[in-house]
Amino acid sequence: MILILKGGVTDEQVDHVIERVEAMGLKAHLSRGTFRTIIGIIGDESKIVVESVRSIPGVAQVVPVLPPYKLASREAHPESSVIDVSGVKIGGGNIGMIAGPCSVEEEDRMHRIAEQVAKAGANIFRGGAYKPRTSPYAFQGLGEAGLKRLRDVGDAHGMPVVTEVTDPRLVELVSEYADMLQVGARNMQNFALLNEVGASQRPVLLKRGMSATVTDLLMCAEYILSKGNPNVVLCERGVKGFDPATRNLFDVAAVPLVQQLSHLPIIVDPSHATGKPELIPACAMAGLAAGADGVHIEVHDCPEVAKSDGPQALLPEQYAELASQLKSLAALLGKTLSPLPEKTA
Amino acid sequence: MILILKGGVTDEQVDHVIERVEAMGLKAHLSRGTFRTIIGIIGDESKIVVESVRSIPGVAQVVPVLPPYKLASREAHPESSVIDVSGVKIGGGNIGMIAGPCSVEEEDRMHRIAEQVAKAGANIFRGGAYKPRTSPYAFQGLGEAGLKRLRDVGDAHGMPVVTEVTDPRLVELVSEYADMLQVGARNMQNFALLNEVGASQRPVLLKRGMSATVTDLLMCAEYILSKGNPNVVLCERGVKGFDPATRNLFDVAAVPLVQQLSHLPIIVDPSHATGKPELIPACAMAGLAAGADGVHIEVHDCPEVAKSDGPQALLPEQYAELASQLKSLAALLGKTLSPLPEKTA
Amino acid sequence: MILILKGGVTDEQVDHVIERVEAMGLKAHLSRGTFRTIIGIIGDESKIVVESVRSIPGVAQVVPVLPPYKLASREAHPESSVIDVSGVKIGGGNIGMIAGPCSVEEEDRMHRIAEQVAKAGANIFRGGAYKPRTSPYAFQGLGEAGLKRLRDVGDAHGMPVVTEVTDPRLVELVSEYADMLQVGARNMQNFALLNEVGASQRPVLLKRGMSATVTDLLMCAEYILSKGNPNVVLCERGVKGFDPATRNLFDVAAVPLVQQLSHLPIIVDPSHATGKPELIPACAMAGLAAGADGVHIEVHDCPEVAKSDGPQALLPEQYAELASQLKSLAALLGKTLSPLPEKTA
Amino acid sequence: MILILKGGVTDEQVDHVIERVEAMGLKAHLSRGTFRTIIGIIGDESKIVVESVRSIPGVAQVVPVLPPYKLASREAHPESSVIDVSGVKIGGGNIGMIAGPCSVEEEDRMHRIAEQVAKAGANIFRGGAYKPRTSPYAFQGLGEAGLKRLRDVGDAHGMPVVTEVTDPRLVELVSEYADMLQVGARNMQNFALLNEVGASQRPVLLKRGMSATVTDLLMCAEYILSKGNPNVVLCERGVKGFDPATRNLFDVAAVPLVQQLSHLPIIVDPSHATGKPELIPACAMAGLAAGADGVHIEVHDCPEVAKSDGPQALLPEQYAELASQLKSLAALLGKTLSPLPEKTA
Repeated sequence: MILILKGGVTDEQVDHVIERVEAMGLKAHLSRGTFRTIIGIIGDESKIVVESVRSIPGVAQVVPVLPPYKLASREAHPESSVIDVSGVKIGGGNIGMIAGPCSVEEEDRMHRIAEQVAKAGANIFRGGAYKPRTSPYAFQGLGEAGLKRLRDVGDAHGMPVVTEVTDPRLVELVSEYADMLQVGARNMQNFALLNEVGASQRPVLLKRGMSATVTDLLMCAEYILSKGNPNVVLCERGVKGFDPATRNLFDVAAVPLVQQLSHLPIIVDPSHATGKPELIPACAMAGLAAGADGVHIEVHDCPEVAKSDGPQALLPEQYAELASQLKSLAALLGKTLSPLPEKTA
Repeated sequence: MILILKGGVTDEQVDHVIERVEAMGLKAHLSRGTFRTIIGIIGDESKIVVESVRSIPGVAQVVPVLPPYKLASREAHPESSVIDVSGVKIGGGNIGMIAGPCSVEEEDRMHRIAEQVAKAGANIFRGGAYKPRTSPYAFQGLGEAGLKRLRDVGDAHGMPVVTEVTDPRLVELVSEYADMLQVGARNMQNFALLNEVGASQRPVLLKRGMSATVTDLLMCAEYILSKGNPNVVLCERGVKGFDPATRNLFDVAAVPLVQQLSHLPIIVDPSHATGKPELIPACAMAGLAAGADGVHIEVHDCPEVAKSDGPQALLPEQYAELASQLKSLAALLGKTLSPLPEKTA
Repeated sequence: MILILKGGVTDEQVDHVIERVEAMGLKAHLSRGTFRTIIGIIGDESKIVVESVRSIPGVAQVVPVLPPYKLASREAHPESSVIDVSGVKIGGGNIGMIAGPCSVEEEDRMHRIAEQVAKAGANIFRGGAYKPRTSPYAFQGLGEAGLKRLRDVGDAHGMPVVTEVTDPRLVELVSEYADMLQVGARNMQNFALLNEVGASQRPVLLKRGMSATVTDLLMCAEYILSKGNPNVVLCERGVKGFDPATRNLFDVAAVPLVQQLSHLPIIVDPSHATGKPELIPACAMAGLAAGADGVHIEVHDCPEVAKSDGPQALLPEQYAELASQLKSLAALLGKTLSPLPEKTA
Repeated sequence: MILILKGGVTDEQVDHVIERVEAMGLKAHLSRGTFRTIIGIIGDESKIVVESVRSIPGVAQVVPVLPPYKLASREAHPESSVIDVSGVKIGGGNIGMIAGPCSVEEEDRMHRIAEQVAKAGANIFRGGAYKPRTSPYAFQGLGEAGLKRLRDVGDAHGMPVVTEVTDPRLVELVSEYADMLQVGARNMQNFALLNEVGASQRPVLLKRGMSATVTDLLMCAEYILSKGNPNVVLCERGVKGFDPATRNLFDVAAVPLVQQLSHLPIIVDPSHATGKPELIPACAMAGLAAGADGVHIEVHDCPEVAKSDGPQALLPEQYAELASQLKSLAALLGKTLSPLPEKTA
């Protein structure tokens, strides 16, 4: 960590800063420049409360030298992690293909969609039983009945399932039914929830918040990892942007950036990122070409009757066409769409 | 609600749209323009699932005519609400002055700060017992011991207290100690938490999320109101911006905008909005001049040892000077800083 | 265009709105809903000054039905345009590969870079002679000497050249030397400059401004088209974002969005979009996979001595590796990197 | 300037960095920490090309210690500048009140508006003769005839006038008619134009670009100052935001921030910042309360026939009411609205 002192700093202030640094068990290395004095802090930076240091009189700026996350960093874990979701691998050249409707819907529709996406190449089935809706008057999901249906449909088609958990009190229940727990964008910094999914052993799909930097995202992964759950898959799903032409702004550069900073896999969700079916295939291809470890797509066979988020769903036949293109692209990049888990008799 | 149809829409598609609208118990009013056909929907718009309508083939755009919130809207409740926090009024010309340290700290420090801010004009004391920290390794608050201390200090100085609740499982406990429950920016769309504070009867201080539009904020207030708790005070605390010179971007225009759209009081938090003590007084004045119903300021008597957010705290003497200016400005605007509640013997 | 009237609008106000609409030579189609009255305007919308209409008393909201650009729209010109830059085609399956240093530099370095990028597959050579620098003290480019050198180097290696023009007074001069005129992001809405490049017959590379919506970008293209120059290539080069980890936020979804709204080709510039060489290849691949008609990359053989923007340049060998991957990807997508123009003896 | 080197940097790389720094005539001060090596650069930082330094192999990050602007900085000029616009002072406690229609309009309307705003307290009259319009089909201003009319109306009512100049070729002509030259937000980084207004001796009203940081704004002021024109007034007029409820996001914190970093006056323009007349008074008050040196407001007596930007104009009577409140607020803050210049017989 480097402290840049203010222009007219006094000797007393400099001494006080050094005292404070040494009181934390660290060494201060003073360097007087022509216009500014800087102090390099030598020792274990994690002992420092950055905010307190910034408040020491005479300090103008604090420049961290190390990232604030450790377990999530590639420095700590140079090899890329491969996460196993009940037999389906994500990361290290294995492409996760998560697909399904936004909400868990009627049973026969669920079976139809699952069958079609599995045939097209999807390897994890999704559907929301607890929906975080911006309106209190909107459909809030089927709850436990939805979990059960999702599980049954997944089993029938040999697919692991992922579903969102929105409440720390529900983590245990959801874990009984789902192979993977999704933490949604609006809950990325719901630390009570992160602590609970961290205590679970289910793999977690952690979606980037709408105003989260990549560092913020990795800090939330750190929460989960630090609680003992190493199975985190990150998801870029669009950040808040200024152009109303798309629902969010798909930050595709976050994919290679995360992969340089962290060993955790990262997938893309062009459904939420764009909110427009006509842009989803192009953005899915872009994500994979940028190096993503998977693609999350909402699929519905009749978007006009979907209980939520119909307008951003692909039709099953559109998904099949896209999946076929993604397969070719993965091959070009030396990667493979992960196969469905082998059936254990 | 108005549906704008696509350029080359067929008669069959137009008929199908009308059928779907009528199936929802509404009337469709067709209007063929030179270049586009539009359909006005007549009836109770709240019956419509906007997203489904947008997915009907041939529909290019859906334009809502009414705001999606009802209980929070000024149409529903033309008079400005005045919220009573254990005897301190916020709204309708009564200015709430919330002040105190970021976290609950040592007992004597708490008493010292409370005494100084109360003397300066603060009428609600704040302090965090459960801190939502971006790092799992940072100080997470004192928990229930912090709640108890906050309560005791508030009582000793005759001030109601507000503190943040971050977990739906803690709403009951926090309500036993606090006069007002704060929902933080990162939890604005934590709907499980909103439902719990909505079921409580404690006034709620709802902070705007970093990427929340004013409509998003009012929808979250609607969650709380719809659960039966009418005592919501909104708080503008800065949104995500692109200039690293300030921590967030203080959206002062949100104050008059909220007041036009809603009857709920709105206060400003220039501490979090700017993250820089040297900008806080100017932004506090700006907020009040824009019509805010209160000002939330972090105050600490030794920021360099603060357990959290030291760099954005004012010193007690800086707070006193600011409070005096705010008092003069309030008088100019025909408003008053709410007095401390009278002691009941 | 649709006018949504305010809640308590009077009959007199409604009549006045209709009068005003009819005074513009248009028809008003009234529709009274349960909660709001709307007026559809029938006729040639381009006659309307949107802003004036929004100021008519009683009008709450104006909803345009048609895009504000015409010549740039795909409705007006369903087939994708192919722009010819002195023999190199961009659009319609032909990939433009623009490469070269940020600024025109020393002669031998220019020759070396041009030779290497041409060999790798680049088909247009770039270099700035007039540099828009954020500091008045930074290197401002070589001016006309730079133009001449760029032309000579391009000719020696059989490549058309593109360079930025920043001043309407220089359009004629730059057109004498360059095959394509670049309008930079900071000048996207420099309408005096747009008018001049519109009056030229040189193809124009129009870069998206940092806070420009896709509609804003297409309106600027409309300026150029409306002056008689149909040869416009658009460029997505990153918009302003909140995460300091990248220089800008690469909006890859703008590529398919522009292609749906407009017939003009659009290329991507991952160098400026990310500002980080280690992210450029992934974002270049993402752009092409999303459907871009070309890729603009800065290349320098010794970034640490570059006169500008060294940190975002690829080395020639890095460019060669990327170009080879782009070529494979183009083939997968059924497209081809445009060949260099044939030499005319 | 501080260079933070990469994690696994070699001794050869460290030596090479030091050589490069010394080759620029500066001293390098090496400091090896536990996890990273840092190099402090001692000497005149302005000799350094930041970008080149960042490209030296082994350098991870470059941290500037001084702001990149000099003439505009408060360090260079501790006393606040007071700019004289033909007798009307802006800065140092003198409040500039700029008011008038968006575009120069019909002669009698111009006289009526000028008379009313002057009576209310406005001290500089505004009106656009050259309009930067987003559509090539929109009204582009009256040109020189508009300049002449603005001048005549200003003279008739004893007010200096300000008008926008959009083209470097027009600076001389506009300077003949106007007392102050406005550089609009879209042209903030039009360096050709900045150079020309820098060579003029007319005071310049420099508006902040929609995606410009405060540093970017001050760098553009530096362009003008460095060309010899010290008379620059800055203007905060809203930056690009994500909430469509307002036209832009009024960044009121930029006012005190600029005043800490720079000696130049800064005014606010709530008309463009909000785009909504009902929010303008609150934001004007907020700006003044935050310390702004002036307020720029668009005023029109019949917005529905305005040639541009009608919806964001106040009516003259609304302006008079606001001006009266601003006058009281200025008095509370110990400031005064500058009087009109005395007539010279």
